Amino acid sequence: MAIFTINMEAKLISSTQNPLIKKVLLLKEKSRERRKSGLFVVEGQREIELAQKGGYNLQTLFFCPEIMGSSSIDVFTKATDPEIVQVSESVYGKIAHRATTEGILGLVQSKNHGLDQISFTNKTPLVLVAEAPEKPGNIGALLRTADAAAVDAVLIANPKSDLYSPNIIRSSVGCLFTNQIGVGTTDEIIDFLRTNQIKIYCAALSASKNYVDCDFKAASGLVMGTEATGLTETWLQNSDQNIIIPMQGEIDSMNVSVSAAILIFEAKRQRGF
Amino acid sequence: MAIFTINMEAKLISSTQNPLIKKVLLLKEKSRERRKSGLFVVEGQREIELAQKGGYNLQTLFFCPEIMGSSSIDVFTKATDPEIVQVSESVYGKIAHRATTEGILGLVQSKNHGLDQISFTNKTPLVLVAEAPEKPGNIGALLRTADAAAVDAVLIANPKSDLYSPNIIRSSVGCLFTNQIGVGTTDEIIDFLRTNQIKIYCAALSASKNYVDCDFKAASGLVMGTEATGLTETWLQNSDQNIIIPMQGEIDSMNVSVSAAILIFEAKRQRGF
Repeated sequence: MAIFTINMEAKLISSTQNPLIKKVLLLKEKSRERRKSGLFVVEGQREIELAQKGGYNLQTLFFCPEIMGSSSIDVFTKATDPEIVQVSESVYGKIAHRATTEGILGLVQSKNHGLDQISFTNKTPLVLVAEAPEKPGNIGALLRTADAAAVDAVLIANPKSDLYSPNIIRSSVGCLFTNQIGVGTTDEIIDFLRTNQIKIYCAALSASKNYVDCDFKAASGLVMGTEATGLTETWLQNSDQNIIIPMQGEIDSMNVSVSAAILIFEAKRQRGF
Repeated sequence: MAIFTINMEAKLISSTQNPLIKKVLLLKEKSRERRKSGLFVVEGQREIELAQKGGYNLQTLFFCPEIMGSSSIDVFTKATDPEIVQVSESVYGKIAHRATTEGILGLVQSKNHGLDQISFTNKTPLVLVAEAPEKPGNIGALLRTADAAAVDAVLIANPKSDLYSPNIIRSSVGCLFTNQIGVGTTDEIIDFLRTNQIKIYCAALSASKNYVDCDFKAASGLVMGTEATGLTETWLQNSDQNIIIPMQGEIDSMNVSVSAAILIFEAKRQRGF
């Protein structure tokens, strides 16, 4: 364990029955609680730092000095006046997924992900759209790829789970906070793309145009459906071009985050990175 | 439930204490048992069909008529003389991961994955190499992408888990059986690639050459390390070219199966699919 000193007033919680600890557990488990309170839970130093960098407001910071490394002090100095709470190892083990590492966990205020919040800094944005993604792990993986490619926005149509699910945050390794994310219905997002003159490319097994034969240098939205059922008719009918990744194996589907990455990086290639 | 008739002699097992059922459970849990017996467990109709198509030998076939659909009969007619065992629903629930669907599960004989078993049908093979992949889910995802791209072989260097782990089979959605897979040490695989005049391209964050500036039309091996530590020095020093996927986000890593897919499909693009 690293040696460090924190000079601050912090209340100590050592009972898992404490109301604040119960609130954390509820926020981790129930999306309804997250929506009601506008708060969610972020675990780990890197994730909290990425949330701070992404403009998220830290309301409460829990730390367990027995577990926390000295580099986590950065999080404290960057936080604007959060409530600081020291917890015992047993309490930390109860509220954290990775019970014995990191030693730092925050209650963070959610953001407004309305489409009217989305703004573009470049004239030919590259946008990833996912319709009704089911698995938190898939959403996390999409966000991770979107971050690596620095796409201009990720739009989620008709989401089936709320963005602040602990599984999404974890599987995105914090990329939930590094992407500009908009949420809306399929109709709203189609409107948004049209208004912003972004061409709609829908990935579909029934499509005939090979993705490498498309010009993604103009403003482009790459739209992905679910692995199980693909995109809905609404998307396919409002598409500027339906596209396909040719597959030559026994199985005719790839993981949605893998397909998205192939399309996104072809666009990046055409744009010269 | 579909109506169908199976005319065959089948013994019925309705006790989870039956020695054969205990053997199945052991084979699912212990890689040591799998290695010792040369047998492993495959669950589900599609997976068993892909194993049969891939030339794997089915030794024992368990079915539960209450759960199984009529289309599974194909599996029986294609099997060359396996032992057929009918099991009760409670026994099936015990041996299967998805307890209430499929209703069909096989004991399958493992194959020799020595590098001397690998053969190429084309003169400029495209080969995916993964060094010491850790997570079964990552190996499964790699195999799924490799199938979609119909790469000529997947080579696994210094594997950390055995190929026939139920998690790998499941996450590969059966693509474990559709790929030509070779296993060896890093040194053996480097030798193999050299002998077969396959250029070695190592994905490395420290590399300077953008992957889109490489010519993958000749015989190419795309070598991926782990997400945590990347490739070992042995690979990097024996590489013909170290390559990088430029990343422009906050996070400097992507999922290994995503990175592999980006490289493989760039090679496919250059080769005109």
